[in-house]
Amino acid sequence: MALIVQKYGGTSVGSVDRIEVVADRVCSAARQGNQVVVVVSAMSGETNRLIALAKAIAPQPSPRELDVLMSTGEQVTIALLAIALEKRGCAARSYTGGQVQILTDNVYTKARIRDIDDERVRSDLGEGRIVVVAGFQGVDEAGNITTLGRGGSDTTAVALAAALKADECQIYTDVDGVYTADPRLVPQARRLDRITFEEMLEMASLGSKVLQIRSVEFAGKYHVPLRVLSSFQEGAGTLIVSEEKKPVEDPIISGIAHNHDEAQITVLGVPDQPGVAYRILGPVADANIEVDMIVQNVGPDGTTTDFTFTVHRNDYEQALEIVRQNGSSLGAREVSGNKRIAKISLVGVGMRSHAGIASTMFRALADERINIRMISTSEIKISVVVEEKYMELGVRALHDAFRLDQVPS
Amino acid sequence: MALIVQKYGGTSVGSVDRIEVVADRVCSAARQGNQVVVVVSAMSGETNRLIALAKAIAPQPSPRELDVLMSTGEQVTIALLAIALEKRGCAARSYTGGQVQILTDNVYTKARIRDIDDERVRSDLGEGRIVVVAGFQGVDEAGNITTLGRGGSDTTAVALAAALKADECQIYTDVDGVYTADPRLVPQARRLDRITFEEMLEMASLGSKVLQIRSVEFAGKYHVPLRVLSSFQEGAGTLIVSEEKKPVEDPIISGIAHNHDEAQITVLGVPDQPGVAYRILGPVADANIEVDMIVQNVGPDGTTTDFTFTVHRNDYEQALEIVRQNGSSLGAREVSGNKRIAKISLVGVGMRSHAGIASTMFRALADERINIRMISTSEIKISVVVEEKYMELGVRALHDAFRLDQVPS
Repeated sequence: MALIVQKYGGTSVGSVDRIEVVADRVCSAARQGNQVVVVVSAMSGETNRLIALAKAIAPQPSPRELDVLMSTGEQVTIALLAIALEKRGCAARSYTGGQVQILTDNVYTKARIRDIDDERVRSDLGEGRIVVVAGFQGVDEAGNITTLGRGGSDTTAVALAAALKADECQIYTDVDGVYTADPRLVPQARRLDRITFEEMLEMASLGSKVLQIRSVEFAGKYHVPLRVLSSFQEGAGTLIVSEEKKPVEDPIISGIAHNHDEAQITVLGVPDQPGVAYRILGPVADANIEVDMIVQNVGPDGTTTDFTFTVHRNDYEQALEIVRQNGSSLGAREVSGNKRIAKISLVGVGMRSHAGIASTMFRALADERINIRMISTSEIKISVVVEEKYMELGVRALHDAFRLDQVPS
Repeated sequence: MALIVQKYGGTSVGSVDRIEVVADRVCSAARQGNQVVVVVSAMSGETNRLIALAKAIAPQPSPRELDVLMSTGEQVTIALLAIALEKRGCAARSYTGGQVQILTDNVYTKARIRDIDDERVRSDLGEGRIVVVAGFQGVDEAGNITTLGRGGSDTTAVALAAALKADECQIYTDVDGVYTADPRLVPQARRLDRITFEEMLEMASLGSKVLQIRSVEFAGKYHVPLRVLSSFQEGAGTLIVSEEKKPVEDPIISGIAHNHDEAQITVLGVPDQPGVAYRILGPVADANIEVDMIVQNVGPDGTTTDFTFTVHRNDYEQALEIVRQNGSSLGAREVSGNKRIAKISLVGVGMRSHAGIASTMFRALADERINIRMISTSEIKISVVVEEKYMELGVRALHDAFRLDQVPS
């Protein structure tokens, strides 16, 4: 008998009919002899409807009251799912975040889970009930309702799985797993049977929005085996595991992620002196703009340097303005920028111990005459920035070059 | 500085615009120096929408889960009202029934309040905040969400007022007070400035559905001054007070109530023996059918008696069938029934000490040639049952006979 935590997102519970389908799946897992805890989101559209009501009253509603309001969305779903389970003869009980004591800090609208009192859930499971828990919400120490921010239901599921030492945490979404590349760009992309937490984190942060980053971090930290599956079709999905559980014969490269949400800002010809990076990025950080890639190169004359970084496209104009204002005091020759860029990344824990990955990557891009504007590497990833128009071509070329369409023998 | 509990029903908070109007009213009460606690219902239509969702899944949803579902309705309203109050610069905080610990028994969908922990509310009031509480809901000792049944928000308001020893509990509705008769039947009907709890109970139980009976009982028991006012127009409404607070010069008759939700069942010619009433009504009570009026008359021959009672029209067929089945074993000559009846009642604490009220009433009806089928009296009310078609005529005739259109001098 396994203890399984299942999580269904807003699309999966978007109507009464879909809730019935989810109930079938949950009951079937319980009838196979598993103890089942289900975490659900608000029915799709509901959270936006509630926010619209609040904004019709005040453009900046009080975050505390926004959380009281938004948390009703999941509360509706838990009741409806419990009703659907009981109709099938599966004993069930629903709980809000406050009722199972998902204790959070008091940062309304983006609270973080501190602790979970799992006593109530364990007692219900012990009595043979399915436990249905509202995702995305909790309470602070004073009993105020909090929410974890968008996508927070994933985090609720993983945190519950960790607290209950569940055998598996299954995240049901509208995709059937993690792919070697975005199947919309690369038709030959292949679903991965397994991937490590670290790889999943890189994939998620690079725009493969299958799972919320925080929930993957959480699962990795507490060693919760995480599985991504489709709530609309059968299949084993992708299991996200610790690196030690990944067979050594697994492929070097797990997948290719891409992202065209960023823009690039370059400062040319600044004096190559200590503190120059700080003097460029300090004012940007002060404006609460997040910086992603940072690359600094030795300049052609040995006394100046060129400095490039990327920010989210929404922050581009503001960041460029800040750097331009500082440019003259820095003694920069020129400040330029580009919004039409894309980032392509190879991700794989195997690349640590394999030479030649980078050169294969750069050759594949060169063969397609794609110019690389920036390069940045980490232990399990190599990212390049190219012109946006080459993004699809680049992803496909790399998918071919590393033969990701073929199941590793 | 007074402590006021205000309650706004579903129609009063039925849209964002109406919530803004309520916020104006609440802020104004606070700015006049009062401490204000507001109890709100779900936006009109919301409870029905939620029930429809549940019934689309199961015709008989689990009562526990129905309460989890329905309680979201008020939770949406408290958040929206708190947001509207804060927009006006009135500090406010919203609480669900569970958060302010409105402790109830565990009879889902019709729980009764056992206790209220007013500490949190008092602390917020002390810090100058308006406290917004979700009506209609509470939690049982195990922390399960319960609801008080339809109209339960009135009870929440009165219970909070009692716990806080509020100076007044104001119930805002879509009528501007309690009238001497239903203004739709009697255009000259006059709004009463005050009425006693006992009179209000009789009026409410007789179909003047201004307030929920349970909330009036509660207010009477805990001596909470209760005021009924309109949320759509200005006015002092009707104050419901203890009898000792009613001036002696107040009129004898407060009002005329009517009700045509009942049906009558008559058992003719049963042996006049001890236990016959029990043998007729016992099986009816066993079927959970509530009986209202009961009248027994001495029969014409001295050895048999005629027995008549009324039940709600929805229960008429079932009750008639039960009595017919028992009729022969009782030795009854005949069992008959009538669905087309109406009850008209004079209500007033003054009638206790005034002779001649009944005779004036009967004469007024006789003058209109209205035949009285049943009579029943209590200390503060005289009820007659007449044919339904005479109901309006009877109410108007009595309103005239007792000159209820005139303000007492």
